[in-house]
Amino acid sequence: MGLPVNCEISLHNSFPKGKRNLITDVPGVKVGHVTLEDAEKNIHTGITAILPHEGNLFRDKVLAGASVINGFGKSAGLVQVDELGTIEAPILMTNTFGVGTGLNGAIRYMLEQNPDIGTSTGTVNCVVTECNDGSLNDIRGLHLREEHVREAIEKAGQEFEEGAVGGGTGMICMGLKGGIGSASRIIECDGEQYTLGAIVMSNFGVKGNLRIDGRRLDTTQLEGRQSGADRQESLQPETDRQESVQLGTDWQESLQSGRMECLNEKGSVIIVLATDIPLNERQLKRVAKRAVVGLARTGSYLGNGSGDIAIAFSNGNRVPHYSDKDILTIKMFHDNAMDKVFAATAEVVEEAVISSLYHGEAMCGIRNRKVHGLREYL
Amino acid sequence: MGLPVNCEISLHNSFPKGKRNLITDVPGVKVGHVTLEDAEKNIHTGITAILPHEGNLFRDKVLAGASVINGFGKSAGLVQVDELGTIEAPILMTNTFGVGTGLNGAIRYMLEQNPDIGTSTGTVNCVVTECNDGSLNDIRGLHLREEHVREAIEKAGQEFEEGAVGGGTGMICMGLKGGIGSASRIIECDGEQYTLGAIVMSNFGVKGNLRIDGRRLDTTQLEGRQSGADRQESLQPETDRQESVQLGTDWQESLQSGRMECLNEKGSVIIVLATDIPLNERQLKRVAKRAVVGLARTGSYLGNGSGDIAIAFSNGNRVPHYSDKDILTIKMFHDNAMDKVFAATAEVVEEAVISSLYHGEAMCGIRNRKVHGLREYL
Amino acid sequence: MGLPVNCEISLHNSFPKGKRNLITDVPGVKVGHVTLEDAEKNIHTGITAILPHEGNLFRDKVLAGASVINGFGKSAGLVQVDELGTIEAPILMTNTFGVGTGLNGAIRYMLEQNPDIGTSTGTVNCVVTECNDGSLNDIRGLHLREEHVREAIEKAGQEFEEGAVGGGTGMICMGLKGGIGSASRIIECDGEQYTLGAIVMSNFGVKGNLRIDGRRLDTTQLEGRQSGADRQESLQPETDRQESVQLGTDWQESLQSGRMECLNEKGSVIIVLATDIPLNERQLKRVAKRAVVGLARTGSYLGNGSGDIAIAFSNGNRVPHYSDKDILTIKMFHDNAMDKVFAATAEVVEEAVISSLYHGEAMCGIRNRKVHGLREYL
Amino acid sequence: MGLPVNCEISLHNSFPKGKRNLITDVPGVKVGHVTLEDAEKNIHTGITAILPHEGNLFRDKVLAGASVINGFGKSAGLVQVDELGTIEAPILMTNTFGVGTGLNGAIRYMLEQNPDIGTSTGTVNCVVTECNDGSLNDIRGLHLREEHVREAIEKAGQEFEEGAVGGGTGMICMGLKGGIGSASRIIECDGEQYTLGAIVMSNFGVKGNLRIDGRRLDTTQLEGRQSGADRQESLQPETDRQESVQLGTDWQESLQSGRMECLNEKGSVIIVLATDIPLNERQLKRVAKRAVVGLARTGSYLGNGSGDIAIAFSNGNRVPHYSDKDILTIKMFHDNAMDKVFAATAEVVEEAVISSLYHGEAMCGIRNRKVHGLREYL
Repeated sequence: MGLPVNCEISLHNSFPKGKRNLITDVPGVKVGHVTLEDAEKNIHTGITAILPHEGNLFRDKVLAGASVINGFGKSAGLVQVDELGTIEAPILMTNTFGVGTGLNGAIRYMLEQNPDIGTSTGTVNCVVTECNDGSLNDIRGLHLREEHVREAIEKAGQEFEEGAVGGGTGMICMGLKGGIGSASRIIECDGEQYTLGAIVMSNFGVKGNLRIDGRRLDTTQLEGRQSGADRQESLQPETDRQESVQLGTDWQESLQSGRMECLNEKGSVIIVLATDIPLNERQLKRVAKRAVVGLARTGSYLGNGSGDIAIAFSNGNRVPHYSDKDILTIKMFHDNAMDKVFAATAEVVEEAVISSLYHGEAMCGIRNRKVHGLREYL
Repeated sequence: MGLPVNCEISLHNSFPKGKRNLITDVPGVKVGHVTLEDAEKNIHTGITAILPHEGNLFRDKVLAGASVINGFGKSAGLVQVDELGTIEAPILMTNTFGVGTGLNGAIRYMLEQNPDIGTSTGTVNCVVTECNDGSLNDIRGLHLREEHVREAIEKAGQEFEEGAVGGGTGMICMGLKGGIGSASRIIECDGEQYTLGAIVMSNFGVKGNLRIDGRRLDTTQLEGRQSGADRQESLQPETDRQESVQLGTDWQESLQSGRMECLNEKGSVIIVLATDIPLNERQLKRVAKRAVVGLARTGSYLGNGSGDIAIAFSNGNRVPHYSDKDILTIKMFHDNAMDKVFAATAEVVEEAVISSLYHGEAMCGIRNRKVHGLREYL
Repeated sequence: MGLPVNCEISLHNSFPKGKRNLITDVPGVKVGHVTLEDAEKNIHTGITAILPHEGNLFRDKVLAGASVINGFGKSAGLVQVDELGTIEAPILMTNTFGVGTGLNGAIRYMLEQNPDIGTSTGTVNCVVTECNDGSLNDIRGLHLREEHVREAIEKAGQEFEEGAVGGGTGMICMGLKGGIGSASRIIECDGEQYTLGAIVMSNFGVKGNLRIDGRRLDTTQLEGRQSGADRQESLQPETDRQESVQLGTDWQESLQSGRMECLNEKGSVIIVLATDIPLNERQLKRVAKRAVVGLARTGSYLGNGSGDIAIAFSNGNRVPHYSDKDILTIKMFHDNAMDKVFAATAEVVEEAVISSLYHGEAMCGIRNRKVHGLREYL
Repeated sequence: MGLPVNCEISLHNSFPKGKRNLITDVPGVKVGHVTLEDAEKNIHTGITAILPHEGNLFRDKVLAGASVINGFGKSAGLVQVDELGTIEAPILMTNTFGVGTGLNGAIRYMLEQNPDIGTSTGTVNCVVTECNDGSLNDIRGLHLREEHVREAIEKAGQEFEEGAVGGGTGMICMGLKGGIGSASRIIECDGEQYTLGAIVMSNFGVKGNLRIDGRRLDTTQLEGRQSGADRQESLQPETDRQESVQLGTDWQESLQSGRMECLNEKGSVIIVLATDIPLNERQLKRVAKRAVVGLARTGSYLGNGSGDIAIAFSNGNRVPHYSDKDILTIKMFHDNAMDKVFAATAEVVEEAVISSLYHGEAMCGIRNRKVHGLREYL
């Protein structure tokens, strides 16, 4: 439900919110999670599936564009999105080492749905995105299985949970419990109402940098109560140095001490934007590029070790896999009217990130790493 | 001098500022302006030259990378920067229709300095960037002349003015008087001090969206005192519609009235980042991509009609034009240490934009368009 | 007229040629040249204008995509083509140091045609492409004037000359006299005939590497008759070394002697592709990327110092500058049918390059540099 | 051993060949195959591993650059190569639906070798490339298993087979049996000998378009002996139309009959280039972009449905994963000297493709599809 209406947090909005304040407010879009939780085995991971429309995605593709904000990431399937401007399978979000299994599961699902793939027609491109949940989850265990992919796709619906669910289960954002967040906005075009929605898997940022509606959140008070051991555990930079160092817990402390290692903005963030405005692939890429504005508003500086990737799709036009005509007709959105879409993109991404934190609750993961939830600080 | 130390505005900083708090704190970097002001003829324009080091730039090139944040722009010279990763001439900032004359002036200057160009060696690539100052300046008059280019280059020094000077003379940012702004930060690498600096030509954004240190600035009170005629004048969207419309003065008002035309984030912004940290061309492109974080902090959502371009260069390595060796030696910065550079980039860009506004004073331009200075609102 | 029907050269074709075998076979496309020739002053340069359709280009833009095959070039205007996917002014071809004047001339022409530019609407993006004609032309003299730009635009028609004319006047290709070349093909879509055409300004390649229909052309016999002084003159690598060296005349000789400097594939090539097939901006970029196939067939290996740029546009859809609707309707070409367009692209580019050589005649230029015409070798 | 010295085919060469005429002539580079052949089960697939050097790739990364020539492909891992310019794991080649298993196998192998991955440091990026072998192989069966990945890596050596082996087992190129091919060249820099090598997995092109040393190969005579049923089998365009059509066997026949469907250049090609010349990531991307020249020489026009991807790496510099210094020293190759590298790149890619065909032998695959070997036509 995105950020609840009467919650402690209020972000500046210029556009009305959709009915659910979720990406699924975009007609036809569905989301499903499979959450893998087994605290004894240090399993805190999962997979999330986003279905761009309710029909056969391979036969009726949606237009799409992606922006690699920072490419320290291992997502699969983006090469073809760039070339052909289409998405033809459910979009998946999982952990870094789940991409292979995500691909296998998605391929098997698509093969079942489409007997022509790999026989009378070509193959299928599946987009699988990822963040590194290794701070909380036993990522080396590769716990995702192919059947989880199918399950996430089949469970997809208009209502879905946020926070530590699906692909977001083991994620950390701004030093707090991150994960799945979503939001939506209504945009008027030619007198009719269209929807723009976002879903994020948040796993980025540095403790101490979080900004909510422009205000820096002070998390040091609560942190002070954490044990020293706990504080050391929090440091597993994505890129790092061999020597052992004693690191502080937040950005300012590290900076002052000259121990810059802990400044590393590790993790990643995946942002999927959906709309029924008939944007084309170039325009969707432009929309995807604006996700960065929402991220920056929450305090990100697009860290070196962060795989920050945004994908935008529109189901307002469909591209048939089979066509007996070379030339078809399609709706075109005039670029003059893009500003409202861009402004709304910044808003939904900002709110989806904050919502992912709002729905996150304290978790204790592998190597006894503890992470707090945002609501403990409000 | 960037944002003055004891001014009304305080931005959150994590890094110490350079001595002048200007891009020229980076050793070797110089900046020069030529300002063309003739209110009677509605001339409010000029040119700014940035010299990456004090030697012969063609013979000793600097490494560089650029990021086209939004490509609704007409800057020249970026194709070769992308291919070869070098800059070999002063970087120029001027108005949109000054790019041709900027190129001619720069080429003539380089030909004089280098008799080998176009005879015994190849040609030279000049980077000329631009924003549209047509809201205040008689841009159709093409008032820039080739000799102004030479003058700006020859006047370049370590001290330079900010605000309505040089290329920034006729610029508008966030509905206020924009123009040239600068800032710098000290970054420690391997125990030694290096500098990162930015200079911006600010001409972007929508009135009502400005954020200073995360807080939205209320400009409506002062605006209320403006005449209706004045308010209408403020609307020349970069991309627009033929019909005549009565437009409000700010984002919220327009949104509520459904008159979305004035939402258009027009204008542009050029950001040049300089450092003596020996970053390579890929890393400099990564730095240039982080400029967007600073822009977003000031309230930009990267509007459709805005040519937002960032260029980053380092004079920490030099690439010789002539070499009798195929293989040379160069310093390499480890990507693990990039986070401090990225974080500082967000800071200098944010502060340079705010400084451009801080130094802007009210101006009355062509078609009687009036624009206020930020300090009137503080 | 492209390569004449009964000439000595026969290239393998899969598609029928257009009526004129010129880019102007695409309905609405026009081409005009201004040739500047003054042998006493060593002036051998000019400008060529390509008009994508016969109407007001600013008000009715064409979709376009570009491919920077090798970015050792100084062409202007490509940033906006990439962002917005449109061309809104005549495309110009001239020499490297003529880009500034080309821009100024194009801007002034567009301002005259469109009183709204820079007053009630934004600015205009002009694409000006270039090659270095400094081996034959006094490029340091900047002999192009703004009125030549207007003249080239106004003279544009369906019939135009090839060879040493317009922007191609002083160009050298594969060690032979290069310049302007063109070709066209008919492509059937949904039972109707469409046209794809190319125009090139050829200035690339190394003597000895030319391939015609796959066969390497032996130019050594004729070369043998050249004086040693003449042979030395032929070496002005775009990127080079300071020391003076005795260089051979062709690729093999240089390679065997270990004097690799003369291997440098200098110069550049500009390729403009036009069609009335309603391709969108992504598809046109794909088409532009296939220009490289035609280049490779003629013997290019995309040399370091060569600014190889291809631009493709379609006038099969028009994008209005002003629209009172957010959402319009447009024709869409199905990617499944792209192969015939790609195959035809390779053919027209190959033939246009060969045609530019076929129409080139021996020229003696600055520093007494002599260059032969292809027909001397056939 | 690449193309044998005294074989029927002679390609124009400008550079001496390496000792083995294989990519493994580059010191430190190793290649290993696992071939999965079970004609009864229609299994004709496998995996090929390329090791950029003999040490720990994660701890000592190689610089790399990639070029997506045509992105109708599903290769994984390229996003990070673009961002960081490094490769840190063996490069894999397999079939389209083997990418997921390739990733899983590579990840497990890297986890075993590096206990720090996913615990005290970040994750690892594995590059897995693919072509669609579904014309001969039961690609829907997903027959690759994770242990095959390890096996291919562990079997890697300096000697390796070409043709229908490893990832190339079930590939078709230009209507003939394709697969793995390789070649190498010696390049002199500053008086010392360096090596450039290529390995391709060839699966692209249209029957009838093959060019060997510029000459079109006539395959119609032998084709005439094929049964009609066989001829129809040859048509499974990557992108196609629903209606059933009678298709001819080659390009010209299809074109004349207007049945353009069979023109579709399906399949893909993966090209990996290796060198010990200390090129940086930008230069390696430039090298990767020149692979297209070699492809074009063999008759490709970069078809719509072809995932054509080139990756170039150099082991002439190493980037340490762990460094206690921010600033290191590295060798830099001067761009002036790139032409010899580019020219050699075109040669090794052309020869590697031809070698893949030369080593291919007739195969009968799934749905009784038969494909001939090139040597049957020589």
